[in-house]
Amino acid sequence: MACTRCAACKYLRRKCPSDCIFSPYFPANNPQRFASVHRIYGASNIGKMLQQLHVHLRAEAADTLHYEAQCRIQDPVYGCVRIITQLHQQIHNAQSQLAKTQAEIVFFTAQAHEELQEAASTFNTLLPQQSDFGQSFYGSSTPPFY
Amino acid sequence: MACTRCAACKYLRRKCPSDCIFSPYFPANNPQRFASVHRIYGASNIGKMLQQLHVHLRAEAADTLHYEAQCRIQDPVYGCVRIITQLHQQIHNAQSQLAKTQAEIVFFTAQAHEELQEAASTFNTLLPQQSDFGQSFYGSSTPPFY
Repeated sequence: MACTRCAACKYLRRKCPSDCIFSPYFPANNPQRFASVHRIYGASNIGKMLQQLHVHLRAEAADTLHYEAQCRIQDPVYGCVRIITQLHQQIHNAQSQLAKTQAEIVFFTAQAHEELQEAASTFNTLLPQQSDFGQSFYGSSTPPFY
Repeated sequence: MACTRCAACKYLRRKCPSDCIFSPYFPANNPQRFASVHRIYGASNIGKMLQQLHVHLRAEAADTLHYEAQCRIQDPVYGCVRIITQLHQQIHNAQSQLAKTQAEIVFFTAQAHEELQEAASTFNTLLPQQSDFGQSFYGSSTPPFY
Protein backbone atom coordinates (compact mmCIF):
# COMPACT_ATOMS: atom_id res chain seq x y z
CA MET A 1 0.00 0.00 0.00
CA ALA A 2 2.99 2.26 0.52
CA CYS A 3 3.19 3.09 -3.19
CA THR A 4 -0.48 4.16 -3.33
CA ARG A 5 -1.09 5.91 -0.06
CA CYS A 6 -4.67 6.92 0.75
CA ALA A 7 -5.61 10.60 0.84
CA ALA A 8 -5.34 10.69 4.65
CA CYS A 9 -1.86 9.16 4.80
CA LYS A 10 -0.69 11.39 1.94
CA TYR A 11 -2.06 14.42 3.80
CA LEU A 12 -0.47 13.33 7.07
CA ARG A 13 2.78 12.46 5.23
CA ARG A 14 2.98 8.98 6.64
CA LYS A 15 3.21 5.45 5.35
CA CYS A 16 -0.23 3.96 4.60
CA PRO A 17 -0.52 0.70 6.60
CA SER A 18 -2.31 -2.29 5.06
CA ASP A 19 -5.04 -2.00 7.73
CA CYS A 20 -5.33 1.82 7.41
CA ILE A 21 -8.65 2.96 8.94
CA PHE A 22 -8.95 5.83 6.40
CA SER A 23 -7.87 4.03 3.24
CA PRO A 24 -11.27 2.54 2.15
CA TYR A 25 -13.12 5.84 2.70
CA PHE A 26 -10.58 8.44 1.67
CA PRO A 27 -9.11 7.33 -1.67
CA ALA A 28 -5.98 8.96 -3.03
CA ASN A 29 -7.86 10.42 -6.00
CA ASN A 30 -9.94 12.70 -3.74
CA PRO A 31 -7.51 14.54 -1.45
CA GLN A 32 -10.05 17.34 -0.78
CA ARG A 33 -12.43 14.91 0.93
CA PHE A 34 -9.92 14.13 3.65
CA ALA A 35 -8.69 17.73 3.85
CA SER A 36 -12.26 18.84 4.67
CA VAL A 37 -12.92 16.35 7.48
CA HIS A 38 -9.40 16.89 8.84
CA ARG A 39 -9.98 20.62 9.00
CA ILE A 40 -13.18 20.26 11.03
CA TYR A 41 -12.70 17.12 13.12
CA GLY A 42 -8.99 16.36 12.96
CA ALA A 43 -7.51 13.07 11.74
CA SER A 44 -7.39 11.54 15.20
CA ASN A 45 -11.11 12.16 15.91
CA ILE A 46 -12.11 10.84 12.47
CA GLY A 47 -10.01 7.72 13.05
CA LYS A 48 -11.55 7.19 16.51
CA MET A 49 -15.11 7.69 15.22
CA LEU A 50 -14.63 5.20 12.37
CA GLN A 51 -12.89 2.69 14.65
CA GLN A 52 -15.87 2.66 17.02
CA LEU A 53 -18.24 1.58 14.23
CA HIS A 54 -18.88 -1.77 12.58
CA VAL A 55 -17.02 -2.06 9.27
CA HIS A 56 -20.25 -2.06 7.21
CA LEU A 57 -21.29 1.29 8.74
CA ARG A 58 -18.00 3.14 8.23
CA ALA A 59 -18.55 4.18 4.60
CA GLU A 60 -21.87 5.89 5.49
CA ALA A 61 -20.28 7.52 8.54
CA ALA A 62 -17.35 8.83 6.44
CA ASP A 63 -19.86 10.23 3.90
CA THR A 64 -21.96 12.00 6.53
CA LEU A 65 -18.88 13.34 8.34
CA HIS A 66 -17.63 14.69 5.01
CA TYR A 67 -21.04 16.25 4.32
CA GLU A 68 -21.14 17.93 7.74
CA ALA A 69 -17.54 19.12 7.40
CA GLN A 70 -18.33 20.64 3.99
CA CYS A 71 -21.35 22.43 5.49
CA ARG A 72 -19.24 23.78 8.36
CA ILE A 73 -16.52 25.00 5.95
CA GLN A 74 -19.11 26.76 3.78
CA ASP A 75 -20.97 28.14 6.78
CA PRO A 76 -18.63 28.38 9.81
CA VAL A 77 -21.39 29.74 12.06
CA TYR A 78 -24.36 27.49 11.31
CA GLY A 79 -22.95 24.49 9.40
CA CYS A 80 -25.55 21.76 8.84
CA VAL A 81 -27.92 23.49 11.23
CA ARG A 82 -28.65 26.15 8.59
CA ILE A 83 -29.96 23.42 6.28
CA ILE A 84 -32.07 21.97 9.10
CA THR A 85 -33.49 25.44 9.83
CA GLN A 86 -34.24 26.05 6.14
CA LEU A 87 -35.96 22.66 5.85
CA HIS A 88 -38.06 23.40 8.95
CA GLN A 89 -39.06 26.71 7.34
CA GLN A 90 -39.94 24.90 4.10
CA ILE A 91 -42.09 22.41 6.04
CA HIS A 92 -43.81 25.26 7.85
CA ASN A 93 -44.56 26.94 4.47
CA ALA A 94 -45.83 23.69 2.96
CA GLN A 95 -48.08 23.11 5.98
CA SER A 96 -49.46 26.66 5.72
CA GLN A 97 -50.12 26.14 2.01
CA LEU A 98 -51.81 22.82 2.78
CA ALA A 99 -54.02 24.41 5.44
CA LYS A 100 -54.93 27.20 2.97
CA THR A 101 -55.78 24.68 0.27
CA GLN A 102 -57.89 22.62 2.68
CA ALA A 103 -59.74 25.80 3.69
CA GLU A 104 -60.32 26.49 -0.02
CA ILE A 105 -61.84 23.02 -0.39
CA VAL A 106 -64.23 23.71 2.47
CA PHE A 107 -65.13 27.07 0.88
CA PHE A 108 -65.67 25.64 -2.61
CA THR A 109 -67.70 22.71 -1.27
CA ALA A 110 -69.92 25.08 0.73
CA GLN A 111 -70.28 27.38 -2.30
CA ALA A 112 -71.20 24.49 -4.62
CA HIS A 113 -73.72 23.23 -2.06
CA GLU A 114 -75.26 26.71 -1.80
CA GLU A 115 -75.50 27.06 -5.60
CA LEU A 116 -77.15 23.66 -5.82
CA GLN A 117 -79.63 24.61 -3.12
CA GLU A 118 -80.39 27.89 -4.91
CA ALA A 119 -80.94 26.01 -8.17
CA ALA A 120 -83.20 23.51 -6.38
CA SER A 121 -85.09 26.35 -4.73
CA THR A 122 -85.68 28.12 -8.09
CA PHE A 123 -86.73 24.82 -9.58
CA ASN A 124 -89.21 24.14 -6.74
CA THR A 125 -90.63 27.69 -6.94
CA LEU A 126 -91.47 27.13 -10.61
CA LEU A 127 -92.93 23.63 -10.21
CA PRO A 128 -95.99 24.67 -8.11
CA GLN A 129 -96.77 27.40 -10.70
CA GLN A 130 -97.00 24.72 -13.35
CA SER A 131 -99.18 22.62 -11.03
CA ASP A 132 -101.48 25.61 -10.21
CA PHE A 133 -101.76 26.38 -13.90
CA GLY A 134 -102.82 22.80 -14.60
CA GLN A 135 -105.42 22.96 -11.87
CA SER A 136 -107.02 26.14 -13.20
CA PHE A 137 -107.06 24.67 -16.71
CA TYR A 138 -108.82 21.56 -15.46
CA GLY A 139 -111.29 23.84 -13.67
CA SER A 140 -111.42 22.46 -10.12
CA SER A 141 -109.34 21.97 -7.02
CA THR A 142 -111.43 18.88 -6.11
CA PRO A 143 -110.26 15.54 -7.41
CA PRO A 144 -111.73 14.81 -10.85
CA PHE A 145 -113.95 11.76 -11.39
CA TYR A 146 -112.37 9.20 -13.65
CA MET B 1 -10.97 33.67 36.54
CA ALA B 2 -8.80 30.93 38.05
CA CYS B 3 -11.26 30.32 40.88
CA THR B 4 -14.21 29.89 38.46
CA ARG B 5 -12.74 28.06 35.49
CA CYS B 6 -14.98 27.57 32.46
CA ALA B 7 -16.18 24.07 31.55
CA ALA B 8 -13.46 23.74 28.88
CA CYS B 9 -10.58 24.69 31.17
CA LYS B 10 -11.97 22.48 33.93
CA TYR B 11 -12.22 19.59 31.47
CA LEU B 12 -8.70 20.24 30.14
CA ARG B 13 -7.39 20.68 33.74
CA ARG B 14 -5.79 24.00 33.01
CA LYS B 15 -5.92 27.55 34.33
CA CYS B 16 -8.73 29.61 32.71
CA PRO B 17 -7.14 32.73 31.20
CA SER B 18 -9.02 36.03 31.33
CA ASP B 19 -9.29 35.99 27.53
CA CYS B 20 -10.29 32.31 27.34
CA ILE B 21 -11.87 31.59 23.96
CA PHE B 22 -14.20 28.96 25.48
CA SER B 23 -15.24 30.75 28.66
CA PRO B 24 -18.23 32.79 27.30
CA TYR B 25 -19.73 29.79 25.46
CA PHE B 26 -18.94 26.91 27.77
CA PRO B 27 -19.90 27.97 31.31
CA ALA B 28 -18.75 25.97 34.31
CA ASN B 29 -22.33 24.97 35.19
CA ASN B 30 -22.71 22.92 31.99
CA PRO B 31 -19.69 20.61 31.77
CA GLN B 32 -21.55 18.19 29.46
CA ARG B 33 -21.77 20.84 26.74
CA PHE B 34 -18.00 21.07 26.41
CA ALA B 35 -17.54 17.31 26.87
CA SER B 36 -19.77 16.74 23.82
CA VAL B 37 -18.01 19.12 21.44
CA HIS B 38 -14.62 17.97 22.72
CA ARG B 39 -15.50 14.36 22.01
CA ILE B 40 -16.44 15.10 18.39
CA TYR B 41 -14.24 18.01 17.33
CA GLY B 42 -11.49 18.20 19.96
CA ALA B 43 -10.72 21.29 22.03
CA SER B 44 -8.11 22.58 19.60
CA ASN B 45 -10.47 22.49 16.59
CA ILE B 46 -13.27 24.14 18.56
CA GLY B 47 -10.89 26.86 19.69
CA LYS B 48 -9.65 27.42 16.12
CA MET B 49 -13.18 27.56 14.70
CA LEU B 50 -14.33 30.08 17.31
CA GLN B 51 -11.17 32.17 16.89
CA GLN B 52 -11.78 32.52 13.15
CA LEU B 53 -15.20 34.09 13.74
CA HIS B 54 -16.24 37.60 14.75
CA VAL B 55 -17.02 37.79 18.46
CA HIS B 56 -20.76 38.41 17.87
CA LEU B 57 -21.02 35.17 15.83
CA ARG B 58 -19.23 32.89 18.27
CA ALA B 59 -22.20 32.14 20.57
CA GLU B 60 -24.30 30.92 17.61
CA ALA B 61 -21.37 28.89 16.29
CA ALA B 62 -20.80 27.28 19.71
CA ASP B 63 -24.53 26.42 19.87
CA THR B 64 -24.61 24.84 16.41
CA LEU B 65 -21.35 22.95 17.03
CA HIS B 66 -22.85 21.62 20.26
CA TYR B 67 -26.05 20.64 18.42
CA GLU B 68 -24.10 18.80 15.70
CA ALA B 69 -21.87 17.11 18.27
CA GLN B 70 -24.94 15.91 20.20
CA CYS B 71 -26.44 14.54 16.98
CA ARG B 72 -23.18 12.71 16.17
CA ILE B 73 -22.97 11.24 19.69
CA GLN B 74 -26.58 10.02 19.50
CA ASP B 75 -26.15 8.75 15.96
CA PRO B 76 -22.49 7.99 15.22
CA VAL B 77 -23.22 6.94 11.63
CA TYR B 78 -25.57 9.67 10.36
CA GLY B 79 -25.31 12.52 12.88
CA CYS B 80 -27.19 15.63 11.73
CA VAL B 81 -27.63 14.14 8.29
CA ARG B 82 -30.31 11.78 9.63
CA ILE B 83 -32.39 14.81 10.66
CA ILE B 84 -31.84 16.40 7.23
CA THR B 85 -32.94 13.15 5.54
CA GLN B 86 -36.02 12.89 7.78
CA LEU B 87 -36.97 16.50 7.06
CA HIS B 88 -36.56 15.92 3.30
CA GLN B 89 -38.87 12.90 3.66
CA GLN B 90 -41.38 15.01 5.62
CA ILE B 91 -41.30 17.68 2.87
CA HIS B 92 -41.81 15.00 0.24
CA ASN B 93 -44.83 13.66 2.18
CA ALA B 94 -46.28 17.17 2.66
CA GLN B 95 -45.86 17.91 -1.06
CA SER B 96 -47.58 14.63 -1.98
CA GLN B 97 -50.44 15.45 0.39
CA LEU B 98 -50.67 18.94 -1.12
CA ALA B 99 -50.77 17.55 -4.67
CA LYS B 100 -53.49 15.08 -3.58
CA THR B 101 -55.52 17.87 -1.96
CA GLN B 102 -55.16 20.06 -5.06
CA ALA B 103 -56.33 17.13 -7.21
CA GLU B 104 -59.32 16.77 -4.87
CA ILE B 105 -60.17 20.45 -5.41
CA VAL B 106 -60.13 19.94 -9.18
CA PHE B 107 -62.34 16.85 -8.76
CA PHE B 108 -64.85 18.55 -6.43
CA THR B 109 -65.00 21.66 -8.63
CA ALA B 110 -65.65 19.53 -11.72
CA GLN B 111 -68.27 17.48 -9.84
CA ALA B 112 -70.07 20.58 -8.55
CA HIS B 113 -70.01 22.05 -12.08
CA GLU B 114 -71.45 18.83 -13.48
CA GLU B 115 -74.22 18.73 -10.85
CA LEU B 116 -75.11 22.35 -11.60
CA GLN B 117 -75.24 21.61 -15.31
CA GLU B 118 -77.47 18.58 -14.66
CA ALA B 119 -79.79 20.69 -12.53
CA ALA B 120 -79.88 23.40 -15.23
CA SER B 121 -80.56 20.78 -17.89
CA THR B 122 -83.52 19.29 -15.89
CA PHE B 123 -84.79 22.81 -15.29
CA ASN B 124 -84.58 23.67 -19.03
CA THR B 125 -86.30 20.42 -20.01
CA LEU B 126 -89.27 21.33 -17.85
CA LEU B 127 -89.50 24.99 -18.90
CA PRO B 128 -90.56 24.34 -22.55
CA GLN B 129 -93.32 21.98 -21.29
CA GLN B 130 -94.73 24.86 -19.31
CA SER B 131 -94.42 27.12 -22.35
CA ASP B 132 -96.13 24.57 -24.65
CA PHE B 133 -98.89 24.15 -22.11
CA GLY B 134 -99.43 27.90 -22.06
CA GLN B 135 -99.61 28.06 -25.80
CA SER B 136 -102.24 25.34 -26.04
CA PHE B 137 -104.25 27.04 -23.31
CA TYR B 138 -104.26 30.37 -25.15
CA GLY B 139 -105.35 28.42 -28.25
CA SER B 140 -102.96 29.57 -30.97
CA SER B 141 -99.32 29.67 -31.97
CA THR B 142 -99.93 32.95 -33.91
CA PRO B 143 -99.49 36.18 -32.02
CA PRO B 144 -102.73 37.27 -30.36
CA PHE B 145 -104.35 40.62 -31.32
CA TYR B 146 -104.37 43.13 -28.53
